[in-house]
Amino acid sequence: MTETIAAGARAAVRPGTRILPLTPHWGVPSAEGWYDSFLSAASVLDLLQHLDQPVDGVVMAGFGEHGREGARELLNVPVIDITEAAALFALLLGRRFAVVTTLARTQGQIEDSLRTAGLLQRCAGIYATGLGVLDLEHDPITTEQAFIDSARQAIAAGAEVVCLGCAGMSGLDTRMSQRLGIPVVDGVSSAVSLAESLIQRHLTTSKIGTYAAPLPKPRRAPATHITEHHR
Amino acid sequence: MTETIAAGARAAVRPGTRILPLTPHWGVPSAEGWYDSFLSAASVLDLLQHLDQPVDGVVMAGFGEHGREGARELLNVPVIDITEAAALFALLLGRRFAVVTTLARTQGQIEDSLRTAGLLQRCAGIYATGLGVLDLEHDPITTEQAFIDSARQAIAAGAEVVCLGCAGMSGLDTRMSQRLGIPVVDGVSSAVSLAESLIQRHLTTSKIGTYAAPLPKPRRAPATHITEHHR
Amino acid sequence: MTETIAAGARAAVRPGTRILPLTPHWGVPSAEGWYDSFLSAASVLDLLQHLDQPVDGVVMAGFGEHGREGARELLNVPVIDITEAAALFALLLGRRFAVVTTLARTQGQIEDSLRTAGLLQRCAGIYATGLGVLDLEHDPITTEQAFIDSARQAIAAGAEVVCLGCAGMSGLDTRMSQRLGIPVVDGVSSAVSLAESLIQRHLTTSKIGTYAAPLPKPRRAPATHITEHHR
Amino acid sequence: MTETIAAGARAAVRPGTRILPLTPHWGVPSAEGWYDSFLSAASVLDLLQHLDQPVDGVVMAGFGEHGREGARELLNVPVIDITEAAALFALLLGRRFAVVTTLARTQGQIEDSLRTAGLLQRCAGIYATGLGVLDLEHDPITTEQAFIDSARQAIAAGAEVVCLGCAGMSGLDTRMSQRLGIPVVDGVSSAVSLAESLIQRHLTTSKIGTYAAPLPKPRRAPATHITEHHR
Amino acid sequence: MTETIAAGARAAVRPGTRILPLTPHWGVPSAEGWYDSFLSAASVLDLLQHLDQPVDGVVMAGFGEHGREGARELLNVPVIDITEAAALFALLLGRRFAVVTTLARTQGQIEDSLRTAGLLQRCAGIYATGLGVLDLEHDPITTEQAFIDSARQAIAAGAEVVCLGCAGMSGLDTRMSQRLGIPVVDGVSSAVSLAESLIQRHLTTSKIGTYAAPLPKPRRAPATHITEHHR
Amino acid sequence: MTETIAAGARAAVRPGTRILPLTPHWGVPSAEGWYDSFLSAASVLDLLQHLDQPVDGVVMAGFGEHGREGARELLNVPVIDITEAAALFALLLGRRFAVVTTLARTQGQIEDSLRTAGLLQRCAGIYATGLGVLDLEHDPITTEQAFIDSARQAIAAGAEVVCLGCAGMSGLDTRMSQRLGIPVVDGVSSAVSLAESLIQRHLTTSKIGTYAAPLPKPRRAPATHITEHHR
Repeated sequence: MTETIAAGARAAVRPGTRILPLTPHWGVPSAEGWYDSFLSAASVLDLLQHLDQPVDGVVMAGFGEHGREGARELLNVPVIDITEAAALFALLLGRRFAVVTTLARTQGQIEDSLRTAGLLQRCAGIYATGLGVLDLEHDPITTEQAFIDSARQAIAAGAEVVCLGCAGMSGLDTRMSQRLGIPVVDGVSSAVSLAESLIQRHLTTSKIGTYAAPLPKPRRAPATHITEHHR
Repeated sequence: MTETIAAGARAAVRPGTRILPLTPHWGVPSAEGWYDSFLSAASVLDLLQHLDQPVDGVVMAGFGEHGREGARELLNVPVIDITEAAALFALLLGRRFAVVTTLARTQGQIEDSLRTAGLLQRCAGIYATGLGVLDLEHDPITTEQAFIDSARQAIAAGAEVVCLGCAGMSGLDTRMSQRLGIPVVDGVSSAVSLAESLIQRHLTTSKIGTYAAPLPKPRRAPATHITEHHR
Repeated sequence: MTETIAAGARAAVRPGTRILPLTPHWGVPSAEGWYDSFLSAASVLDLLQHLDQPVDGVVMAGFGEHGREGARELLNVPVIDITEAAALFALLLGRRFAVVTTLARTQGQIEDSLRTAGLLQRCAGIYATGLGVLDLEHDPITTEQAFIDSARQAIAAGAEVVCLGCAGMSGLDTRMSQRLGIPVVDGVSSAVSLAESLIQRHLTTSKIGTYAAPLPKPRRAPATHITEHHR
Repeated sequence: MTETIAAGARAAVRPGTRILPLTPHWGVPSAEGWYDSFLSAASVLDLLQHLDQPVDGVVMAGFGEHGREGARELLNVPVIDITEAAALFALLLGRRFAVVTTLARTQGQIEDSLRTAGLLQRCAGIYATGLGVLDLEHDPITTEQAFIDSARQAIAAGAEVVCLGCAGMSGLDTRMSQRLGIPVVDGVSSAVSLAESLIQRHLTTSKIGTYAAPLPKPRRAPATHITEHHR
Repeated sequence: MTETIAAGARAAVRPGTRILPLTPHWGVPSAEGWYDSFLSAASVLDLLQHLDQPVDGVVMAGFGEHGREGARELLNVPVIDITEAAALFALLLGRRFAVVTTLARTQGQIEDSLRTAGLLQRCAGIYATGLGVLDLEHDPITTEQAFIDSARQAIAAGAEVVCLGCAGMSGLDTRMSQRLGIPVVDGVSSAVSLAESLIQRHLTTSKIGTYAAPLPKPRRAPATHITEHHR
Repeated sequence: MTETIAAGARAAVRPGTRILPLTPHWGVPSAEGWYDSFLSAASVLDLLQHLDQPVDGVVMAGFGEHGREGARELLNVPVIDITEAAALFALLLGRRFAVVTTLARTQGQIEDSLRTAGLLQRCAGIYATGLGVLDLEHDPITTEQAFIDSARQAIAAGAEVVCLGCAGMSGLDTRMSQRLGIPVVDGVSSAVSLAESLIQRHLTTSKIGTYAAPLPKPRRAPATHITEHHR
């Protein structure tokens, strides 16, 4: 999935912008719930803290996932989360936007992500297709139809724009837009675009308060592994 | 002023992107209040309706000024308002942002612009320097100091980012950022950047509802002129 | 239409109150969208700025239309917008009110008008009949039924009062109220009533801040006409 | 106090409108807190339930006091509360309004009254003079100065209109307005004006839901008296 | 009904905690509307003001009923209202909660009670079974089914927890929870539990502002009785 | 610190309730920022996932820290976060509450925690003493004075109750309450009390939606350690 996301990012950037896809070394292959999201956040922050090559910006590519504020503390380069990025562009394109995502259980996280970002007022709703993240690549036709169906519910409820509520759906935004006749916004391309703009304009995270660098302190490594979890 | 704004836009765009500065043929030289803003909105929409060359996007360069929804009805290309553009970028850079603007009387318009955009929640306040729009170019040192002073009030009240509440302040964002140590966001460069991104990604205004093309109807020209207004 | 509105106003005022109907000399015959609304606002403000007879108050009779704040700057007499007037009375009559209006495309403007007025909390929804403003006089029976049908949807959704979302619907409020058994509030009679009260009580717009008189400046007349617009 | 309130009401109404001042037979002479307010509400509702002469409308003249919804259930004629009435008019006169009231302890009730009415958004604050309700008639000069001082704080905080947060302050609104140069809104004159308008326009409370007549049931009289309360 | 409520309270408290059921000597046997609620509030406050035995805490057992702030002024011991108590526990158990209550006409009071408590944001809705309060004991099977049906509507609308919107429904919370598979929260057991905790931890109402003891003043007894009300 | 927190918990519970203090095996000794909070959340969830003894409830003892929703997914027993617990009790004791916490940089997390919990409306502010979490035990007199000073600012701004914005401050709530004359609420005792109540009443997290058990999937252990972090 990381490579699909990277391909989507590369398609969106200017010539000369290099995309460096990074996958945490531990955590979860896909985040489908709060527990997953918090593990994912920590694993991403761990990765960022050990980053040994310079980057000019970071895109957090988990839709509705936690961690962006921690990344803003850790880094001096801009950090963009694809949830906020998709919503920001959607605001420019229609009066109300909806998010269409995978499992219903992730709706709460996405809503909280938008609420804390201050971007919930013009959200017409968060719709779930019922597909899991890893299912999305098995049957692209079924996947596309499920997203179209949810989008139509959203439009009936007043949405004029749809945000794809997950990453790595190569070309789905374009196909949906053609079928629905409305703009469909992908978060990864939105985020890399915003990152490029901030970098070019020498704008980065404010370090005077909330996102000041983390205080020096011992942070202890896990003495026991996070074992695999099966139920 | 239009040329200063155009220069700022050109500095922000990619090579190959042409900026076409347009000034309405009637209306007000600068908008400093609601009456001005509504005249300005109509004059801008009039201009856009008569636009006889193709453009790929439009930036509305009046901070806190009305009209963007009308432009979205008229056009099939993206329309970005510098008020929303500045706020959108500010959201990525700090927990709270403030706007520093010219006259206190424009604070209400800016607040309404952000409120209807759904971007007011993380706004820490709208601060006025007391300078009029046309004064801004007379004494750059006094102007800069006034903006710095207002920004410091905003920072004391919790702002971590400042948006410049007017257009055409060449280089002020950079000088303020150096002196204050926080990001200062200019609306024109923010807006052209967002426009470029939408254009490149083939995203444009949704025409299915709120922003559908205006209905055909006679729209009558002024039989009497809007005379000059002196009190 | 202006005469129908004037007739409704005259029926609502006290003996001795004179209604002076004014129609802008340019702009749009009816406003059905944002573009229309901004043109209308400018044309109304132009008219008010050239008003050469004294008036004691002004009613802005476009439901959901822009411009009231500009009128408050221009004038020293009270200005009432029929959107806010209808809502204000509705608040006294039931727990939730709905607006029933003409085209769906105007719902956004009405919502923004109520939101910036701070009157949205108890609004149970804005319902559209799908009729255009100029259609309303062609078939009063069809019109009335369309408004009744929308009102019933609103009541099913919790509305206990209905505001008519347009002006000049002579007697429709009364007929609807009889059929539905709930209060139906007309904006024009609400607004003239509020205006009369303010005038009698010597209350008028505060000029200390937001609505101070516009600054003296040249405001230039249109060098080219706003041509008629057909698509 | 009731007579002062009645005099204020008579000064505000049209010729031919009769004001019938009613004081509950039990309860509290003045309400200065929640306990007082709830006693007052019940005593007023008791009075209204036993009203043996027809009236066309009712004004609840306790600022920030409870009970208006109960009156709307009991009666088929309009009921106006002076808290909502003052705020409604204030909304027409400036961008933000403040309430200046007596004791600080009543600020919570006034805020709740405005919040449940949906009128809190444009309230710039509720300011207390520290005077008790019965003190207001002892020294009109001190009272006026205390109200002026609080109003000035409110103006410094952004208020452009002031509502008098209590009834029966004969002429204080006019004197304050002259000294402050802003509109000052009295609740009783606002409420009788709104009542007159509703009565003339044959508009009254919706009885389809929230304010339907109370269900028939035994309501038992107090077996013991509410004794006088001294601490 | 008071005894059923008392039995529910006794089942919820620790050994050693005594429940003293108190019923006002006047007022209404059951509150089903605003008028009832305000009468009930005054009768409860009257009772509390005459309480001649020491208590450590008070539970106000009318769901959605007024008066809790008055009780907090009168007393120095904690006061808990079952509406806020049920909601507080519900917040710990699911993302959204719904209230299922008796008559539709009480929905407004419950909503206002939650709104002024600041607990409305996570409320997914207030659902009415259409049963009157005194009906609830006639046919427990019909009652339970009605509550189950309303709860299912609430769950379909996103509720994950249900609060019982009235007191004295012995065992209904448990039976509903078994049938629905979600937590069902009773307000009386919630309130007594919170009261016990505050008492044990020596926490009680803040008396520094809003809930300071009522000012000394004459409070006059009813010269006429509140007669029984039949329509 | 864990032992101090445990001692506070033991003092608050009923006889027979056992407190089992658990400290994650990795992560951070104290959380003072977003990065810390996300690491802490993951380490706590890791610990809970490996919990090999049965517990009846869990208290998350980091004020303003993330993770409670993940714990609710993982467990079938109630989970209480001390941030929400303190606020819930504060709502019962005064009209507005404030939080007094350690470093200013944690104010954003606390605010977000309250906002997503729906508990922000009655929060009068979040005040920072400027002390770090590990400093709190060095000089109890300085610590107490710093908390008193911040609390007084909060009271001047309208707070009537104070919540201690961190855990493990043994007896500080009592000493502050004595000095300030208002209730001061500790989160740990609040949380264990709520947990006991839920357990006794057989109420636990709803598993029908947001907090359903995490989906089975491989969750990979860290291949590299989270090294100690010094800057």
